[in-house]
This record gives sequence, C-alpha cells and structure tokens, in this order.
Amino acid sequence: MVILGPNRYGKAETRVVRVTRHGDAHHIKDLNVSTSLSGDMEEVHLSGDNAAVLATDTQKNTVYAFARKHGIGAIEDFALLLARHFVDSQPTIHHARVAIEEYAWERNAEAGHSFVRSGRETRICVAHYDGTRAWVVSGLTGLVVLNTTNSEFWGYIKDEYTTLPETRDRILATAVDATWRHAVPDPGEAADWDKSYDAARQALLAAFAGTYSLSLQQTLYAMGSRVLADCPGVCEVRLSLPNRHHFLVDLSPFGLDNDGEVYFAADRPYGLIEGTVLREDAPDAGPAWS
Amino acid sequence: MVILGPNRYGKAETRVVRVTRHGDAHHIKDLNVSTSLSGDMEEVHLSGDNAAVLATDTQKNTVYAFARKHGIGAIEDFALLLARHFVDSQPTIHHARVAIEEYAWERNAEAGHSFVRSGRETRICVAHYDGTRAWVVSGLTGLVVLNTTNSEFWGYIKDEYTTLPETRDRILATAVDATWRHAVPDPGEAADWDKSYDAARQALLAAFAGTYSLSLQQTLYAMGSRVLADCPGVCEVRLSLPNRHHFLVDLSPFGLDNDGEVYFAADRPYGLIEGTVLREDAPDAGPAWS
Amino acid sequence: MVILGPNRYGKAETRVVRVTRHGDAHHIKDLNVSTSLSGDMEEVHLSGDNAAVLATDTQKNTVYAFARKHGIGAIEDFALLLARHFVDSQPTIHHARVAIEEYAWERNAEAGHSFVRSGRETRICVAHYDGTRAWVVSGLTGLVVLNTTNSEFWGYIKDEYTTLPETRDRILATAVDATWRHAVPDPGEAADWDKSYDAARQALLAAFAGTYSLSLQQTLYAMGSRVLADCPGVCEVRLSLPNRHHFLVDLSPFGLDNDGEVYFAADRPYGLIEGTVLREDAPDAGPAWS
Amino acid sequence: MVILGPNRYGKAETRVVRVTRHGDAHHIKDLNVSTSLSGDMEEVHLSGDNAAVLATDTQKNTVYAFARKHGIGAIEDFALLLARHFVDSQPTIHHARVAIEEYAWERNAEAGHSFVRSGRETRICVAHYDGTRAWVVSGLTGLVVLNTTNSEFWGYIKDEYTTLPETRDRILATAVDATWRHAVPDPGEAADWDKSYDAARQALLAAFAGTYSLSLQQTLYAMGSRVLADCPGVCEVRLSLPNRHHFLVDLSPFGLDNDGEVYFAADRPYGLIEGTVLREDAPDAGPAWS
Repeated sequence: MVILGPNRYGKAETRVVRVTRHGDAHHIKDLNVSTSLSGDMEEVHLSGDNAAVLATDTQKNTVYAFARKHGIGAIEDFALLLARHFVDSQPTIHHARVAIEEYAWERNAEAGHSFVRSGRETRICVAHYDGTRAWVVSGLTGLVVLNTTNSEFWGYIKDEYTTLPETRDRILATAVDATWRHAVPDPGEAADWDKSYDAARQALLAAFAGTYSLSLQQTLYAMGSRVLADCPGVCEVRLSLPNRHHFLVDLSPFGLDNDGEVYFAADRPYGLIEGTVLREDAPDAGPAWS
Repeated sequence: MVILGPNRYGKAETRVVRVTRHGDAHHIKDLNVSTSLSGDMEEVHLSGDNAAVLATDTQKNTVYAFARKHGIGAIEDFALLLARHFVDSQPTIHHARVAIEEYAWERNAEAGHSFVRSGRETRICVAHYDGTRAWVVSGLTGLVVLNTTNSEFWGYIKDEYTTLPETRDRILATAVDATWRHAVPDPGEAADWDKSYDAARQALLAAFAGTYSLSLQQTLYAMGSRVLADCPGVCEVRLSLPNRHHFLVDLSPFGLDNDGEVYFAADRPYGLIEGTVLREDAPDAGPAWS
Repeated sequence: MVILGPNRYGKAETRVVRVTRHGDAHHIKDLNVSTSLSGDMEEVHLSGDNAAVLATDTQKNTVYAFARKHGIGAIEDFALLLARHFVDSQPTIHHARVAIEEYAWERNAEAGHSFVRSGRETRICVAHYDGTRAWVVSGLTGLVVLNTTNSEFWGYIKDEYTTLPETRDRILATAVDATWRHAVPDPGEAADWDKSYDAARQALLAAFAGTYSLSLQQTLYAMGSRVLADCPGVCEVRLSLPNRHHFLVDLSPFGLDNDGEVYFAADRPYGLIEGTVLREDAPDAGPAWS
Repeated sequence: MVILGPNRYGKAETRVVRVTRHGDAHHIKDLNVSTSLSGDMEEVHLSGDNAAVLATDTQKNTVYAFARKHGIGAIEDFALLLARHFVDSQPTIHHARVAIEEYAWERNAEAGHSFVRSGRETRICVAHYDGTRAWVVSGLTGLVVLNTTNSEFWGYIKDEYTTLPETRDRILATAVDATWRHAVPDPGEAADWDKSYDAARQALLAAFAGTYSLSLQQTLYAMGSRVLADCPGVCEVRLSLPNRHHFLVDLSPFGLDNDGEVYFAADRPYGLIEGTVLREDAPDAGPAWS
C-alpha cells in the first residue's frame, strides 16, 4: 500500500526590488523570495484535481502586490506577513514556509538614487506559520573570514591512514553559513529584526577574530555561544563552516624558506564542520529548521 | 545555560578516480566522496582538545586507500564500507555518514582506454552507520526531462491575486532530483545496487513520459509510485521537481499565431514541487535522510 | 581628444524552444540566442539619441517571430537568417553578429512527446554579416574526455623552479572547447551544417582516442588536423584544452602500491593549452572570430 | 597543407595568498594568477618533443617562489615581473601573458590578523611582454550598480517586431566589466598602479551616478570618458555592460498602481552593451587585449 508522505509546493526565487523615494533620497530592498505551501493536497497528487491548489503563479503575484501594499521592512516581517496571508486566507492551506534572501546595497557616493551592490554576505530568513503558531529563523550565508594566525591543530587521533603533520600555526579560513532561531517570533517588535541581525553578525565576526583556535569546532562553538550571549531573543544557532584550507607552499626546492608567508588556497576537498549551539531551555523547534 | 547540540564534521568532496585495467579494456569510476563523523565531540568544541578527532585529512586518505585496497563497485557499497570502517575502528566515533556522487562516462569509440563524460544525471547515495544499524538512500540529481504535450493545468483556486489563465495544453519540464530509501541495506547483495538504480531511473523516466498530467504534483506522485512498484527493496521516495516553465510567446503583435510552437524557457521564478511517496509499512527512517 | 572605438550592442541569451509536431512524433530545438549589432552608433553614445538603435527588446522579438515563421533547422542557418535580417532591414545597422548555443535532447523511450536532456557537449555557432559578406564559425563546448593511458610527459626544460617528475604513463583528460571556421558560408547548402558538425565532433573524439600523446599540444594539433582532414569545408580550427590533472595518489604511507589505479582529480590550477590549426590557403578570417 | 597558427599554453588559476606580518598588523594579498607562454612551439605540436616547453607546473612553482622572494605589491607589477622572467630566462619563450585577479579583504574589527572578504568587485590585470616591449591592461569585473531614476529610453527604431513601450523613467542597472590600457607601462612607477586603479574605479562610479541617461550606450561612453579624464596614463577603456533589466510589475489586476515602486529583477535575456572609448592619439594596442 503506497501513501503520500510530507509534501509542499510553491514559487521559488521570486526576485523583487522595492524602491522607496523620500524626495531625492531613495531606498532599495532587493530580495529573492521563495514560498512553499502545504495542506489538503491528497487529491492533487492522486488525481490531479487542483481545487485545493493556490497556483504558484498566484503566490508570485502576492509577493509583488504585498511589496506595493505593505512595503518591505525587515525580511522577517515580510516573510511572516506572506506566510500568515496564505494560511489565513485559504481554507485548504494549513502551513506556509517563506524563505527570503536579501542582497545588500550601499549608496554610490552622495547620489540619492545611485547604489553599489556591496557583495558582502547575503542575509536570509525562513518563517513558518501553521494557522496558530509562527517560527522564525534568521541567518546569513557567504561571510568569508580568515585569520592569519592564532590557529593550531594537533593532538588528534593517529591511525594507520594519518599522515597530516601537527601544526602550531596555520591560516584558518571559512565561509560562514549561520542560521539562528528566535525563541519568540513576534511581528509586533518589527524594529528589532535589523538590530538583532546586526548584533548576530557582529558576534560571529568578533568571536571568529577573538578565539585562539585549537580546532575549527572550537571556533564554531565560540561563534554560536557569542550569538546567544549577545542576542537575548535567539535560542539556537546552527553553523556550517567549510574549512577553506590554505596550505603552506614548500619552497625548499628553490632554496627558500616559507615561514607563514606564501600559501596555496585549495578548492577541494575541504573540511566541513557543522554544529548546533543552543540554550538548554530552548523551546521545541517544531518545523523551524525544515 | 548554553549547550552543544547535534554536530558532525568531515571531509567534503574528495574527488577520486579509480581505473581498473583488464588487458586493453579499462574501466573507470569517477566519484565525489563526502564523509561526516559524529561521536564524543564535547571536548573539541568546548576546549579544542582533539583527542577524539579523526582528522578530516585522515578521512580523505582513507577514501583513497580503500579505493586501492577494495576497489570501487556500486557507490552504495563503497559508502557503507567507509562508514563501517570509521565507526568500527575508532572508539570515539559513533556515527558516520558517507555521501557519494558518481559521474557517468561512456566509451569513446572502440578504444578501451578512452572515455567521454556522458553529461547525463549524477547518481548519488548517502549511507549512515551507527555501529549497529545501517541506512542507505540512493538517488539521482539533474535528470532534465520535458513533455511537449499531455499536460494541463486548470481548476485551481482563484483569489484576488490570481491572473494565470487556465491551460489545456502546456509544456511540462523539470530537472528531477530523486532519492529513495532502501528498506534493508544489506551489503551482502552488492550486485543489486546497480540493478536497483537502473530500475528506479527507468521508472522515473517511464512515469514522467506516461502520465497524462493535470498538475506536476500528480506527475510527482506517479513517478514515486512507479519507483516503489518497480523496486521491491525501496520503501520511500522523495522528489524535488522544479517546474521549468516554458511560456508560449505571444506572437500576435506580429500577425503570427502560436499554436504550441515557440516557447520562452524561463529561469526564475520557478514552481517547486516537493513530495514523498512511501509504503504504508515502511520501517522508521531513523537518520537516513539527514 | 577622446573618441568612440569599436562597439556593438544586442540582446544576450534569448532562450527559445521550438516544437514541431508531426502527428505523435514531436521534435524540439532548444537554443540560447545572442544577437549583437553595430552601425551608425556615434549619436547614441555621445548624446543618447536612439534614432539609429534597434532596441534589444526588438531583437528578442525577432528571434521568436523568426522561430515561428521560418522554423529552426541547423543553428548556423538560423544565425545567418537573423544576421541578414537585421542588416538588410535597417539602414543604420551595418554589421550583425549572432551567436547560438544548442542543448541536445534525446527521446524518452518510445514516447513521441517526451524528451531527456542529453547533457553532453553544447553545440555552438557564431555568424557575422556585414551587408555583403558572411562568416560562419561552428563549434562545441564542454566535451569532456579522458584517456587512461597512452600519454607521457618528459623531456621538458628543467630550470631552477622545476620539480615535476617526468612520466611515461599518465591520465590525460580535458574539456574540449573547439570552434572551426567555414571557408565558404553558403546558406544554400543548409543540409550540410549538421553533417559537418557530426563529422567534426567525430574527428575530435577519434583523434583524442587515437593519438599516443607526448604532450597535450601534440593531441591538440592532431585533433585540429583531423577536423580539417575530415571536413573539407572547414579552413581553420581553434582549440582550448584545459589539462584536467589527475594526480596519482601516493599510497606508500599505507603500505600500498598504486600502479595507475587511484587518482585525485584536481580543480585548480590547471594547464591550459590553446592553439590554432589551419589550412595554409585559408581565406582571411575577417571578423569571424570576434 | 595544414599549418600551426597562433598558440599559447600555461598554468591557469594558480591561487596564491601572501601574508606579510608587521608585528601584530598583518596584511594579505589574495590572487588568482594565470600565465601563458608562446615561442618555439612547432615541435611540441607536431611531434610532442617538449624540449622548448617550460612545464606549466614550473610556471606555477615560479609564481609561488616569486611571491616569497619579491613579495606582492600591485598586481600589475607582479604580472610584469613574472612575464619578464619567463621570456628573459628561457631562450625558447618569446612572449608571455600574465593575467591576475585580486580579491579584496577588509580588516575584521581591530584584530590585526583577522580579515573579512569584502565581496565587492574583483580587480584584474593582464600584462604582455615580448622580450622588448610590455603592455599592461588593468580593470575590474563584477561591479554591480543601480540607479533608481535619471534613466529614459525612447526615440528608437520602430519596426514590425517592436513592441517595447517608450519610457521616461526606468531603473538602470548593470554589472560593470571594465578594462583600461595604459599608454606607457613602466614598472618603475610601481606606486602608481594602486592610485590609478582607485581613480579609475571612482571615475566609473561617479560617471554612472552622475549621468542622466537616455541609453546605456550614453552611460557607457560617459564612464569611459571619465576614466580617460581622471587617469592621464590610460589611453583606452573597454566596457561590457549587461543591462540588468528591472521591469515594473503590472499591479493593476489587483487594483494597485505602481509608480516606480515594485520591480521584477530579470535574469535572461539581457541587453549587452559593449564599447571602447580611447584617446585619438592612443599608441597601437599590439597584443594588449589578447
């Protein structure tokens, strides 16, 4: 007997740019919005009857219409707004997931209408809503950081396949993917998402710079802990840290020493350290991470 | 009180090519192997003490050494072999996850030593082992398919944001990402992984071609069901199907009709249909999908 | 005194899919078309006066309208058709360049309406037309090939920075980017473009497999020569061959030999061999390669 | 009669990171170096005799050794240093091309050893040397800019395939790829490359922001002219500007106006404007752009 398991459907990567004009000083929000809905979807899978389906094209239209009607503030607010709308307005939709990426722009000189894309990390969020409760995860991706020193790696297991020499000084570099769960998603405190984001980002950077590292796991834990320490509303942090290996080049064949000066930045393979740091009393995550 | 939650670490994307030479007829296996280990990792996170850590560099070495010692048959077997080794040989490692991608090559003419990369979909697998039990998921990614007809879409909800016209004939195209869980991963029946893969791939293609589709969800369910029908060892199928929209171009401004002849292949946004089809009596998935 | 130098403008990457239905047997052509025009463009650069400009949006529309009106046969014919149209219909446009990529699809089983993208190399062409003469270059990109033996590399310069050991047996692998210029582009012989493409592709594969290689340059020259030998209409071949290094893994620390069995497929850096092979009496290339 | 035409070979994408430590204040240079050599290469192509070949592996080693011996200042200097070395030290090498990309990093807070990759545009250069003369092109890629207003597009040709409505106000956005040729590459004025780069970058940004645009061509010409005006050593500028279309979304079906507030950021197709701005008395470019 074959049955339908978990499922969802939606419109992925709706690219919306919202311009706000205050006289000559313009502001832009540049987002990539992905919506996913679940609900009474047995029939559409079994017979193709679409009566319960809010078309993905309609979801896209809603993103654009809401950008016009409500403006776009913090992406967490916009995600919640959309998620609540889909579930509350459609009897057949019982759960919505809205994921948003935001690309940062900076002003191009003093011109109020001209912008340069900053290229720094992408801010992200995922909001879930089930008709009663909401969950919000915030985060960032692609924050590339590097320490030229204060990193060691030694004392690990030596088995028959181990050849790596221990080191008391190495480059430590990674591209931070970090997401953090808010204990109480309350769209009423809208003004706080941006502040919370800045604090979390700052905590990640400060912990990366400030940790004398004996392993990337130690750095990961320090980064997660710092976010929890600096952001009271956050109850859980998840980090995925690729170890962007920088290998010291052996220059001895050329009669040259290399005391931490010339490195080869390798692509693959790479170490990948994934971990979670959370408060002991963090509420149940529910669907937050899905 | 802050605590360490779920974590794992390993070496991602070890690229190994294994050549086997039977006289003039050579064979190649071209893999991308990612290993992840978990276990007694409190200390490395809290203090940077690496005594429990099998270095990711060692994991990489093991992949290469095992490719030499054991050869590479079906990727599921190679993944299980590695996963068992890490857990069984290291007291501090309690769980291993090994994910493998395989790139297909075809013979270049009759030359026994010359090959052309096929470019078709990538075969994948993920094996878990916890010291006692094993779980195996197989799959493929990037199988791009298109039907020029036998696809309709109508009867969906019309709300105030709906503008999409109903259609009784459209192109249906997707890039299939499919993974399927085996009920009983038994490395003893090694010869079966390849047969099972071919049957599942064939089932996906046949169901896509053979389903008269009223929605991509219906097609998804038909594809999943067909895999279950044709592969007795499989108990659950997960599918992620981006709807690669092909929009009929409006040529009426140029005095031309367009009765299903000229389409614009769009990039973003795209519909994304995700779903699971499983046997009612499928055993618990455990960590299989993580 | 500042002046305007060479310039062109156009619509890049118009994605067009053309379906032809012969009863139940459908056919598809899947193209990515980029058009570039040049002509009386001083004013648009200096003052922004667009009187001489055929909008890039119009160029896109033309691609779609022509796909409907004329169908799509060989991409070289479609490129020439478009190039001639832009120059011949617009007094201000004196030169057109049309570049096309074609993605190959195969039938999905016996179903006349169902297709699988083959994933093999992309066929490409570039056509130029200046109101009088036309030039056509055909080619392919992303044809990945590998020989497990019959490749050596030794006898090269040894300077103070040379550490590479000589080898009498190595893997030779590359991703072929090849383009070839036709001596006489005659749209009248439309039927021949496909035959010529198949012959050139086959020549590249056969020469790669059949050349016992002492250097990738030697293989490159053999591939180019073979295309010229097998395709009488071709007068010049350009090849760009990245050397996709496969390094033999040193397994001696693990007490294992490695006699050509286990390789590491490296990403960067990579050798890059670029070269041209042509007939001594090849006509002047004009703008063909630009 | 088949002959060998233009050719070159080298090592592409050697990734080198150079650390300089002044007490606690560290500095890093993060480069991607590609070298290409030409010379007496008939034999290697015809017979595979490598006697004239400086192995690409040796070229890579040289990059690392030079980074140690000479340090890395402006990338133009490092490129010239390498190019001169290859030609001057090897009798069989008559021409060298060295292309470098540089990734920018910023300090992570006050920590002297911690850095964040800035993510902004990539600085590039290409140096050529033929044993007597040198040529240097500098540039940048991936500088993404957007104006929310001060852009119109009207007055273009209307032919039978034109449907685009004229507009008196639109978003203008592009990802600037710009390269500029120096009239006199003199490695003696090393200190000037960085100043010249900053001036050119600033000129591009200022001209983009400051030009009231009637077409992207006009903006392109203004950008190129401004670089020439602000950088006396530069004699020619080449720009490639994809028109990153932002389409105003039609919200009228939802009873909403949209007076320049909500835009859809499109991917493909896109306009592509390419052009050259140069001094009338610019010296011959020779191989500079190849």
